[in-house]
Amino acid sequence: MTPTRVFASLGMSLDGYVAGPHARPGNPLGDGGARIHQWVYGVEAWRRRQGMAGGETSRSGLVVAENFDRAGAYVMGRRMFDEGEVAWPDPPPFRAPVFVLTTTARDPWVRQGGTVFTYVTDGIEAALDLARGVAGDKDVQISGGAHTVRQYLNAGLLDELEIHLAPLLLGDGIRLFDGVDPDLRLEVDRVVDAPDVTHLRYRVVR
Amino acid sequence: MTPTRVFASLGMSLDGYVAGPHARPGNPLGDGGARIHQWVYGVEAWRRRQGMAGGETSRSGLVVAENFDRAGAYVMGRRMFDEGEVAWPDPPPFRAPVFVLTTTARDPWVRQGGTVFTYVTDGIEAALDLARGVAGDKDVQISGGAHTVRQYLNAGLLDELEIHLAPLLLGDGIRLFDGVDPDLRLEVDRVVDAPDVTHLRYRVVR
Repeated sequence: MTPTRVFASLGMSLDGYVAGPHARPGNPLGDGGARIHQWVYGVEAWRRRQGMAGGETSRSGLVVAENFDRAGAYVMGRRMFDEGEVAWPDPPPFRAPVFVLTTTARDPWVRQGGTVFTYVTDGIEAALDLARGVAGDKDVQISGGAHTVRQYLNAGLLDELEIHLAPLLLGDGIRLFDGVDPDLRLEVDRVVDAPDVTHLRYRVVR
Repeated sequence: MTPTRVFASLGMSLDGYVAGPHARPGNPLGDGGARIHQWVYGVEAWRRRQGMAGGETSRSGLVVAENFDRAGAYVMGRRMFDEGEVAWPDPPPFRAPVFVLTTTARDPWVRQGGTVFTYVTDGIEAALDLARGVAGDKDVQISGGAHTVRQYLNAGLLDELEIHLAPLLLGDGIRLFDGVDPDLRLEVDRVVDAPDVTHLRYRVVR
């Protein structure tokens, strides 16, 4: 059995933002931040998981499909969950257990298609242990948002960081790497070149 | 004759820095900033232009050689020149005319191998016109530093921006895109994947 890898996969602008200015509840990507993810909205593999028909198969589609396939469980920050709770279709796109980092206990929420949200109040290591426990021979994805990914990076718990680098500037907003220990050691793992985005995957070296 | 293209080619950390903290005269790359350029120091095509023997041929070497070959003239900021003046070998690595943006008139400085430094006191457009005038069917490289590249970007005078993205964080320093108009429109032109750096070239769309 391949050991479970812990990975994150985020869109980022060329100037380092994962959300534009004025990000807040109800505007989680900030002003203009949806442009970061423009490349994915037409990808068939992504649309299918959102319950939408159509879309393109492409190299970007293979990257998206691969991440869906390898994720046997997810860990997610509370703010990302709050946004998604009202926005995801049923079945939600995960099709696997999702462990939500929160300070407020709540009963698990079972949705169609294999997605079960479980609320974890005792920290990032506990949530990751739970996710590992159910991922089987698959991997664990730290879904986001940026604050949650940073916590796992700084705790040395992330094995791979994938960045979907969008060829645009946002100029202001939330920077992925603000507050990440600059001693983080990364190696280029894989680069996938697409017309409208560059998929950069890095291994975290310990 | 192919129209002259105006390009810049800079190293950048994954968190967007072209120099580390405490960059100043005598420490132009800032603390740790030389790590951004680590990938190039072993490249044969780069070493040869610095008057150094040895080095590797690689995909990165092809990128370096291509930029040297296409540059028929250079434009450079004053601070970059000041650093290089005391550091470049003779012949310097340019082998072509270099127009230095400055406020202090000075006679041209002729060096071996085709490098002539000419000092331009009437602004970035004048310097670019001079460079275009001597580039022939080659292109003009805006050498840097970051402040100079930003000026050309914001004036709409740059056709291509190449970033050598190093898989590391600096955490503080000089960010390439600080102060660049976020309405800048870029398209992915070419991606070259190397083990220790990713060469990303963008077209500026007008």
